[in-house]
Amino acid sequence: MSERVAMIGSGIIGRAFAICFSRGGYEVTLYDPVDGVARDALPRIKETVEDLENEGLLNGRSAADVTGRIQAVGTMEEAVEGAIHVQENAPERLDVKLDLFGKLDKLCRPDVVLASSSSSIVASKFTEDLEGRHRCMIVHPTNPPYVVPILELVPAPWTDKAVVQKTRERLEAMGQAPITLNKEITGFIMNRLQSPILHEAFRLVAQGVATPEDVDRAMSEGISQRWSFIGPLEVGDLNAPNGIREYAERYEPMNRGIAAEQRDLVPWAGPLIDYIEERFRARLPLDQLKDRQRWRDRRLMALAVHKQWANENIK
Amino acid sequence: MSERVAMIGSGIIGRAFAICFSRGGYEVTLYDPVDGVARDALPRIKETVEDLENEGLLNGRSAADVTGRIQAVGTMEEAVEGAIHVQENAPERLDVKLDLFGKLDKLCRPDVVLASSSSSIVASKFTEDLEGRHRCMIVHPTNPPYVVPILELVPAPWTDKAVVQKTRERLEAMGQAPITLNKEITGFIMNRLQSPILHEAFRLVAQGVATPEDVDRAMSEGISQRWSFIGPLEVGDLNAPNGIREYAERYEPMNRGIAAEQRDLVPWAGPLIDYIEERFRARLPLDQLKDRQRWRDRRLMALAVHKQWANENIK
Repeated sequence: MSERVAMIGSGIIGRAFAICFSRGGYEVTLYDPVDGVARDALPRIKETVEDLENEGLLNGRSAADVTGRIQAVGTMEEAVEGAIHVQENAPERLDVKLDLFGKLDKLCRPDVVLASSSSSIVASKFTEDLEGRHRCMIVHPTNPPYVVPILELVPAPWTDKAVVQKTRERLEAMGQAPITLNKEITGFIMNRLQSPILHEAFRLVAQGVATPEDVDRAMSEGISQRWSFIGPLEVGDLNAPNGIREYAERYEPMNRGIAAEQRDLVPWAGPLIDYIEERFRARLPLDQLKDRQRWRDRRLMALAVHKQWANENIK
Repeated sequence: MSERVAMIGSGIIGRAFAICFSRGGYEVTLYDPVDGVARDALPRIKETVEDLENEGLLNGRSAADVTGRIQAVGTMEEAVEGAIHVQENAPERLDVKLDLFGKLDKLCRPDVVLASSSSSIVASKFTEDLEGRHRCMIVHPTNPPYVVPILELVPAPWTDKAVVQKTRERLEAMGQAPITLNKEITGFIMNRLQSPILHEAFRLVAQGVATPEDVDRAMSEGISQRWSFIGPLEVGDLNAPNGIREYAERYEPMNRGIAAEQRDLVPWAGPLIDYIEERFRARLPLDQLKDRQRWRDRRLMALAVHKQWANENIK
């Protein structure tokens, strides 16, 4: 009998996490406070799981096995019954998280991990007064986590480090790529890496340096290629004959110069957005945006397949 | 008879560009002021071209065809004889560029494009006094350009826009991904996208938020996945139901908050670098750095193969 994990909230993130945990070998219960949402999630999950099976992205399991271990339940009590990990995927509202974590903390034994998929509200905002606050933390995915493996673990100051470490190991064993933040910080790490790129992309267009399409191309056909499999610090380590120290010494002056030119932000509004929107909508009318999103998701899945192959075959 | 392109300087970048232009259908002459360097480049080029043939990355051409159109010559005069495009790949020193462009401008008819691979010295610094300054510009690659297709075209204020456009079309037709900068700017675009990521990566480690390995992982298993095929502005366009305007309205407040926390730079020196270097060298001793660089290059090539496949098969 597999261990059990409970999803509280069965929208996009709840469904995606259900797949990750079931693919990782767990029994998964799905609960949603809105009647019918958890039940209706099952056929949608099945469709995604079959796509993943076709791509070879189920860790060697069958679609039937993965969907067979996911069940919808009608109450929160049933969902968490016997669960070792509870993943809350509710709307990003503090009152909702306060209410849910208050209930979950009462329902679950003290050794059950209570994780929130929150992307911006930190755990210290809604767990401080809980008796079991030591087992509460953020486990923040990037959508969809069954294709993009990163998960950001963000404990509150009172979260037990051993619980964080055990959760990290559990997620790693499932084939995810967990990282641990030692402090609560605005935007966690991924948004903090993305944010200055966005500011600079808007700035370059606002200053007339290049078109939005060319700024995008500098990323998609250029600087991102190596980042798709090694991070920025290792990129530096490999870009100087004697590693990261030499890289830092050699390139800090230029990078300080660039930073001095990147301190002022441009507003993401007005004529700048008019101009970008006009160009983007000329290329992709609004009614084709959904098709392009599906294309993006297929590309992400194909990239995951490629990376799995490359991890196994290029040493 | 194919048109001819001349490489002035036959080091790493000159060899790589020779492959790009020959794969694009041009005759290529290789010149280097150091005796023997151009000649010795040929067997190294052959080895790389054969690797590219094995991977299917020669635009359907054979290795014999591509290497057969590259020849080493003994003088700059022979190199530029009949060339329509000259690519200078000399060391990043202003005196060297001034000297070379002075000579090239005298040697080449006014309709020949004179391009520099310079990564930081802008063309206005070494072309202002030339009679043919209208046809001079930067064409800056990322190494290696036969695998990472981006090329940054950076004209001087006096460069003829029609020459820039024609050069862009020529490079695009070869299978590269040229972008055009309308202004000379520190670091061009790719380094300006990379720079704030590096500052933030060092900052996160210095502040004790996460280990260098986890910061890297946030990129390599997370935020970079979509960037590997779409740029940051289109990512935004696809991440709100009504596109980039809605995305900008929704996410500017959070991103302003993050920017406020990213204004102070941490020095890329001292205990921070000691700590990162110690961890990196424990994982990868210095004498294995070259092996890891070769692994990175094989991964980049495999990614290029994957993207070629995905561009053709995922619509």
